[in-house]
Amino acid sequence: MAAPVKVYGPPMSTAVSRVLACLIEKDVDFQLISLNMSKGEHKKPEYLKIQPFGQVPAFQDESISLFESRSICRYICEKHGDKGNKELYGTNPLAKASIDQWLEAEAQSFNPPSSTLVFQLAFAPLMKIKQNPSAIKENEDKLAKVLQVYDKRLGESRFLGGDEFSLADLSHLPNTQYLISAAKDKMEDLFTSNDNVGRWWAEISSRDSWKEVVRMQNNTPN
Amino acid sequence: MAAPVKVYGPPMSTAVSRVLACLIEKDVDFQLISLNMSKGEHKKPEYLKIQPFGQVPAFQDESISLFESRSICRYICEKHGDKGNKELYGTNPLAKASIDQWLEAEAQSFNPPSSTLVFQLAFAPLMKIKQNPSAIKENEDKLAKVLQVYDKRLGESRFLGGDEFSLADLSHLPNTQYLISAAKDKMEDLFTSNDNVGRWWAEISSRDSWKEVVRMQNNTPN
Repeated sequence: MAAPVKVYGPPMSTAVSRVLACLIEKDVDFQLISLNMSKGEHKKPEYLKIQPFGQVPAFQDESISLFESRSICRYICEKHGDKGNKELYGTNPLAKASIDQWLEAEAQSFNPPSSTLVFQLAFAPLMKIKQNPSAIKENEDKLAKVLQVYDKRLGESRFLGGDEFSLADLSHLPNTQYLISAAKDKMEDLFTSNDNVGRWWAEISSRDSWKEVVRMQNNTPN
Repeated sequence: MAAPVKVYGPPMSTAVSRVLACLIEKDVDFQLISLNMSKGEHKKPEYLKIQPFGQVPAFQDESISLFESRSICRYICEKHGDKGNKELYGTNPLAKASIDQWLEAEAQSFNPPSSTLVFQLAFAPLMKIKQNPSAIKENEDKLAKVLQVYDKRLGESRFLGGDEFSLADLSHLPNTQYLISAAKDKMEDLFTSNDNVGRWWAEISSRDSWKEVVRMQNNTPN
């Protein structure tokens, strides 16, 4: 039996939880290795050898080390095409290209405003950092525009990449979960004022894989 | 003979020129379809059907339409594995994963500060928009930190993804070209104060494919 792959970083990190959701969907055994980020363990020389930017997650599988959550997810799907959810990165080149473009839309269009909002609305209060109302407003407006495009797309197909749940949908789970937990009324409005986005969020957030990741986040001290 | 693929958008766009460089490296015939962005052609309903965010480029190949430059590049390489530069997205899963992680590092770490600097240093003066000195300073500092990581990596391998020029390197060409053209002294300092980055930039920017894209940029009115 192959040794479990290693994931370094806390499940409360959005990028770490993206990789965990992918591993659970693909039914791949993993070992989660905690890093004490408040003690700077992510900036130590031995960690920088596998994650040169000093961020989380880092990933190891046999002889390969990787960083960047979306690339780690692509690698897991490519290596384990026949395991777990076989549709996660498509089963033919056209399906894959469609998934990849919406995964890139998440990275380029959805992630910048939503990760700023996650910091402002969810993490700043925990860290006792003063919120910046103008950054909140500006990024809510940007996110609303992105969600209008998503709503149109999700009126034409059940999921972003097509008819099946894929990496493109999965990649949106971590930020959206924090936004809806931290500012339920405001964010449910933003998400459910778009009917198709609301239907999509209800479906993707209730997957067993994601519920397992949320349990891991809630059970981890940090 | 297959019909040429279609690329919509002006070559002066960094995202369009990323796709053009990839097509030339892969020796794939293409037809460039200009869009008059000052007349809002990228926001018209027929264009939004293939690029729902109203951005450039959009791409069509037979029955498939795609957006997001990095996804278009991945698709071109997957479809045309045996054409042109065969190493561009790797010839085995480990090489591909390494290229993909550095392509993602470009998208997530290099692109945010460098695209802000491209706007401030290259486009704002052309558009007679006032530059923002604090945005310039902040993003120069961020870019300098990213380039320190690159310099270490490029001390260990000839290119970012490994021993061969790949999509990971190619994806850095458009922004860097504008930065060095717009603010030669300042940017050459930033790039060449890191010896390995300087050596890498000289090598990747002198490829025939990229020189052809720069010619297209210079020959296109806009």
